[in-house]
Amino acid sequence: MKLFSTSRLLAFGTALTLTLAVGMGCAAAQGMAKPGDMKAAPMADMKAAPMAPMMADRAKLLTSPGVFGNFSTYKVRADYYKLTAADRKMAAAEILKVIDKHKDKVIVDAYLTRGFKAQSDYFLRIHSMDPAATQSFLVDFRATRFGMHSDVTENLVGITKALNYITKDKSKDLNAGLSGATYSGDAPRFAIVIPVKKNAEWWNLTDEQRLKEMETHTMPTLPYLVNVKRKLYHSTGIDDTDFITYFETNDLGAFNNLLLSLASVPENKYHVRWGNPTILGTIQTVETVVKTLSGM
Amino acid sequence: MKLFSTSRLLAFGTALTLTLAVGMGCAAAQGMAKPGDMKAAPMADMKAAPMAPMMADRAKLLTSPGVFGNFSTYKVRADYYKLTAADRKMAAAEILKVIDKHKDKVIVDAYLTRGFKAQSDYFLRIHSMDPAATQSFLVDFRATRFGMHSDVTENLVGITKALNYITKDKSKDLNAGLSGATYSGDAPRFAIVIPVKKNAEWWNLTDEQRLKEMETHTMPTLPYLVNVKRKLYHSTGIDDTDFITYFETNDLGAFNNLLLSLASVPENKYHVRWGNPTILGTIQTVETVVKTLSGM
Amino acid sequence: MKLFSTSRLLAFGTALTLTLAVGMGCAAAQGMAKPGDMKAAPMADMKAAPMAPMMADRAKLLTSPGVFGNFSTYKVRADYYKLTAADRKMAAAEILKVIDKHKDKVIVDAYLTRGFKAQSDYFLRIHSMDPAATQSFLVDFRATRFGMHSDVTENLVGITKALNYITKDKSKDLNAGLSGATYSGDAPRFAIVIPVKKNAEWWNLTDEQRLKEMETHTMPTLPYLVNVKRKLYHSTGIDDTDFITYFETNDLGAFNNLLLSLASVPENKYHVRWGNPTILGTIQTVETVVKTLSGM
Amino acid sequence: MKLFSTSRLLAFGTALTLTLAVGMGCAAAQGMAKPGDMKAAPMADMKAAPMAPMMADRAKLLTSPGVFGNFSTYKVRADYYKLTAADRKMAAAEILKVIDKHKDKVIVDAYLTRGFKAQSDYFLRIHSMDPAATQSFLVDFRATRFGMHSDVTENLVGITKALNYITKDKSKDLNAGLSGATYSGDAPRFAIVIPVKKNAEWWNLTDEQRLKEMETHTMPTLPYLVNVKRKLYHSTGIDDTDFITYFETNDLGAFNNLLLSLASVPENKYHVRWGNPTILGTIQTVETVVKTLSGM
Amino acid sequence: MKLFSTSRLLAFGTALTLTLAVGMGCAAAQGMAKPGDMKAAPMADMKAAPMAPMMADRAKLLTSPGVFGNFSTYKVRADYYKLTAADRKMAAAEILKVIDKHKDKVIVDAYLTRGFKAQSDYFLRIHSMDPAATQSFLVDFRATRFGMHSDVTENLVGITKALNYITKDKSKDLNAGLSGATYSGDAPRFAIVIPVKKNAEWWNLTDEQRLKEMETHTMPTLPYLVNVKRKLYHSTGIDDTDFITYFETNDLGAFNNLLLSLASVPENKYHVRWGNPTILGTIQTVETVVKTLSGM
Repeated sequence: MKLFSTSRLLAFGTALTLTLAVGMGCAAAQGMAKPGDMKAAPMADMKAAPMAPMMADRAKLLTSPGVFGNFSTYKVRADYYKLTAADRKMAAAEILKVIDKHKDKVIVDAYLTRGFKAQSDYFLRIHSMDPAATQSFLVDFRATRFGMHSDVTENLVGITKALNYITKDKSKDLNAGLSGATYSGDAPRFAIVIPVKKNAEWWNLTDEQRLKEMETHTMPTLPYLVNVKRKLYHSTGIDDTDFITYFETNDLGAFNNLLLSLASVPENKYHVRWGNPTILGTIQTVETVVKTLSGM
Repeated sequence: MKLFSTSRLLAFGTALTLTLAVGMGCAAAQGMAKPGDMKAAPMADMKAAPMAPMMADRAKLLTSPGVFGNFSTYKVRADYYKLTAADRKMAAAEILKVIDKHKDKVIVDAYLTRGFKAQSDYFLRIHSMDPAATQSFLVDFRATRFGMHSDVTENLVGITKALNYITKDKSKDLNAGLSGATYSGDAPRFAIVIPVKKNAEWWNLTDEQRLKEMETHTMPTLPYLVNVKRKLYHSTGIDDTDFITYFETNDLGAFNNLLLSLASVPENKYHVRWGNPTILGTIQTVETVVKTLSGM
Repeated sequence: MKLFSTSRLLAFGTALTLTLAVGMGCAAAQGMAKPGDMKAAPMADMKAAPMAPMMADRAKLLTSPGVFGNFSTYKVRADYYKLTAADRKMAAAEILKVIDKHKDKVIVDAYLTRGFKAQSDYFLRIHSMDPAATQSFLVDFRATRFGMHSDVTENLVGITKALNYITKDKSKDLNAGLSGATYSGDAPRFAIVIPVKKNAEWWNLTDEQRLKEMETHTMPTLPYLVNVKRKLYHSTGIDDTDFITYFETNDLGAFNNLLLSLASVPENKYHVRWGNPTILGTIQTVETVVKTLSGM
Repeated sequence: MKLFSTSRLLAFGTALTLTLAVGMGCAAAQGMAKPGDMKAAPMADMKAAPMAPMMADRAKLLTSPGVFGNFSTYKVRADYYKLTAADRKMAAAEILKVIDKHKDKVIVDAYLTRGFKAQSDYFLRIHSMDPAATQSFLVDFRATRFGMHSDVTENLVGITKALNYITKDKSKDLNAGLSGATYSGDAPRFAIVIPVKKNAEWWNLTDEQRLKEMETHTMPTLPYLVNVKRKLYHSTGIDDTDFITYFETNDLGAFNNLLLSLASVPENKYHVRWGNPTILGTIQTVETVVKTLSGM
Repeated sequence: MKLFSTSRLLAFGTALTLTLAVGMGCAAAQGMAKPGDMKAAPMADMKAAPMAPMMADRAKLLTSPGVFGNFSTYKVRADYYKLTAADRKMAAAEILKVIDKHKDKVIVDAYLTRGFKAQSDYFLRIHSMDPAATQSFLVDFRATRFGMHSDVTENLVGITKALNYITKDKSKDLNAGLSGATYSGDAPRFAIVIPVKKNAEWWNLTDEQRLKEMETHTMPTLPYLVNVKRKLYHSTGIDDTDFITYFETNDLGAFNNLLLSLASVPENKYHVRWGNPTILGTIQTVETVVKTLSGM
């Protein structure tokens, strides 16, 4: 029995490429958060700085495939508050310096979760073309006064990919729906991170079956494109989740409705993880997060 | 194949509105706890203060849809008891000041769980029209002496919505039953918080099927309207639960019977989370909770 | 469609009463541990004290329905052993004083679990007609030196009820078997606490079906009435368990056989929690527990 | 309906006795580890001591039914290493003294797990006819310097019983196979403890069905009698497991093969717990364990 | 009934040997990471040292069956950073000395996980012919300043075996595919460790059925031999997993695709554990890991 041949392997490779893409609208199509379009935009305070040639291109990192996304949640330990106020006052500046040191490789977004989640006080979202650069930044961050007094409580890593299921070729109308709508609400103040893992039955469906399920999944989400932004990261094998879904909104009620509509389609039956944790935070600058948690 | 059209999307939006509402009687219909009607009512000590125009409207926040509810449970760390008695004596006043600072945006209820639950010593219930205001209050709370020595052990967030299933239109008799009965027991001394999550099969039922299940669910609960008050919060997507159910009673035996009757209907088969944790506390003022746990 | 009427509700109420009762022999029928009948009986040291009219009636609290049972397990923190021996020597007396203060409302039993269970060093069983009185005692207990250095690791609450399934009316022979046998072994030195939770399928059975299962469950337990005492608490809705089963025995081998026989009937298929934790301890006086763990 | 009679109860009792016995070869049949037959035998250092009449009979405790086995795993806390070397040097002697104090009631084996298991640094296996004697020893052990700086991370208790399924009467050939083979490998250096819990379906099988499954389970284990010793403890009801299986071997590869063969029979389908934790350690004397972990 | 005979036992033994082998290509066939072929190779700094006759043969340990693999993950405790910089500066040298002491028995690889995983900062992979030698090294490592301030958070142990399913005899073409392809990417900078456990249904399949599933499993992995290296360890019975799969790659995107292809075959339906944790780290020398985490 000859189990495979060069041509079959080639075909397999092609099928793979088709399979491994994005089930939700990609960032580009949905006008994902950019520094300029929200009041409390992460890193907005760095806009004034001249865009040096070495600086990582935020817009590109937030919209390209092949970018590594890293989400890490932290709790500030009680002993941080035993430092002097003077020490804590320096915390934000120290971190901004670290961010500046790595600004050619990584971009950093910060979110305040205290008061929303028991497992964390804040979380960071890091984008980079190279996960080693992300690690290098986070090692330096943890060496700061604030980072040293933070316990990391969750860490999720993923990769962005080109849109897969709802493409112009495979699902023309829905693709048009996805590209046609634009976020038109107030600047989002809230971000939600939800890890998603699917069971073996899902991954053993044919491409056609999964496409069909994803169309049913996508249709009810279209009305929410105007008030919820979304971004998808792929994690199979590099983390204990298949996807990291990231959302920004200013309307948590609409977001709740969106997620209810996603619960109500058959694709939900294939979920073995949907949340756990669901991470909810307010979108902030790094400086604000650090100062707020430093009691400044 | 044309998968959707403007009109279908519109229809979907309507269906959504119908789907996303309250399965249990809303607060208004059930005379949810108000400061005036119980001896140990949370915040009752603030009644003497003149109701300034800036003050959040407690009655409205407790009965309107679109209100954000936030439940956070805490354990007092052992090192709190190494503070001097003088320091601990100031704890309650410090917190009341923080509550006063935020009184135009948030209302705060407090409950003592020590002795009932291993996971917590007390919990707070915060209502606000804006979750960011809730977060702002809780950040300030955690910066107090007492808050700083408390570890948050659970945090649940949800939104109130208008009644969905058992409405006048859809289920006339049961709706009349819900509105007809009034709580007539002694002022409740106990509150119970139970998170509820339903599986994909539930959310994939049709509206009619879910209505039928909710009618069967609601019927046996009517006899308990006289001694158990209830309130419902929706959490799908903003937390790892679909609902937060909140109860007040003075009769834990009757409450046990109510929950047994809810266990005995087919809707229970769709639960993937019912409790975990079940939070039981005595209804207290913030001042009493802090003083009790401060050894005052 | 008329979904319910006054008479149907009434009928439902009656059915409820029938449903919500005890599946295992009630304490009265089985001669549950009383201070006088065992060497190391909890609280036996208080027998000498004159039975003041204000004192809670131990026999009544241990045999009546409507009594609240509270089980809390504790680990002594390492820092307790850094106190001076003199400080630790005072620990037991301090707690006996607290017990005395609350003796008109609550009765307290104590058990040593160190060496048997990783999750705890000791546990307390509190009975009271009013859970708020139990809480009040436990708040005071935690304010003692010993309580302050103890971390609570589990807390289960429940209510006693009248026998339900195996009543004289419904299951005459088995009821006679339950009442006919008496504990005749040596004074029990061991207590076991096992939380039990049943699934939705169980609660959706008819009363008749559940009665049949409970008869099959009860029959093989009769031979063990002579060497295992039992007591049942109901917890649905007030804790993350449906029942707390409590046992006393001097023969752990017989107890193991009893539980194997309970595992071997169809009712076991409805369990979603049976243990987790299973708590095993030796029956002690409060004084002995505190002194033993204080290194006295 | 008459549900039971004296004779039926009697019959039940008999069936029970048959049911509650050992599925794996009992210790006696398999030459379980005795001090004399291995280089690093636990307690080997006590061989020189004259066998006083008061001393617990090791051989008997390791081979008789009705003996209580207690497994406790520990992690040494970081603060132990802040004690002076002189203090740590005394640790082993202090423990040997405690062992000596209890030597008429309990026997103690010690194992080093550091480097193999994240959950523990070492574990103890205690045998005694009386669990209260075991508790008494462990209370004293925890009061030593070393015990006081150890956190107990798991504790499993069980009882030995006579062989049940594979008896001379019920399964002659397999029984002969079990008794015929003897351990002939090098003195075992490794011990493995694996808790086993079976589901309700298993316990609801008839005795005949379970016997058949245990025969299929036992057959492939025979070849490993020459290089893996085994011992079984029964825990239903007294712990959150049905069995504690204990193994000694000098060949972990053979042991891996044995467990694979046990995974490959239908009986495995009834497991709800098999491991969690799987505890692997090297067989040591108590003195060596304490000295090794004390940095001596 | 005669259940077994000498010849049947013999046949069983043979079948066992066939069953218990490697499902993924063995290290030798896949050019597993060797010191010389990557820039940041673990232990590369030791290449300069003359290969003394006593030194463990790295190439042999990484490619032979019967080798024990030990993976341990660690978090550096906060108090490490309270040591003086001088103390932390000595940490790496101290560990290299320990490695040198054990170099005739064990080889040590080190990986930095900080910034990728919440559960750990770094992990070690130890190979040795004798697990006791591994334990001895890890005991010494934990006694160093750095090891003493590290909490072990996970520990996985396994054994290498000869290839089982995809052998030249059983699956000729696939075997040729496995041996024919060579890693040709850049030196891998990333390592991933994924524990795998299969359910009872899997182990109860016949050898032929499992072979068929493994062929379907192996086929889509062939295209990734050029950019992902793999190594397999067997753990059934000696740990709470059946396999430890270890990967090295410089292309996490390709690795994600590989794992998606492994998710999409029927064999995935037999998994009860796949990850939990998934451990992702950068390949480093021990010295670099220690210095990086020491803030040097």
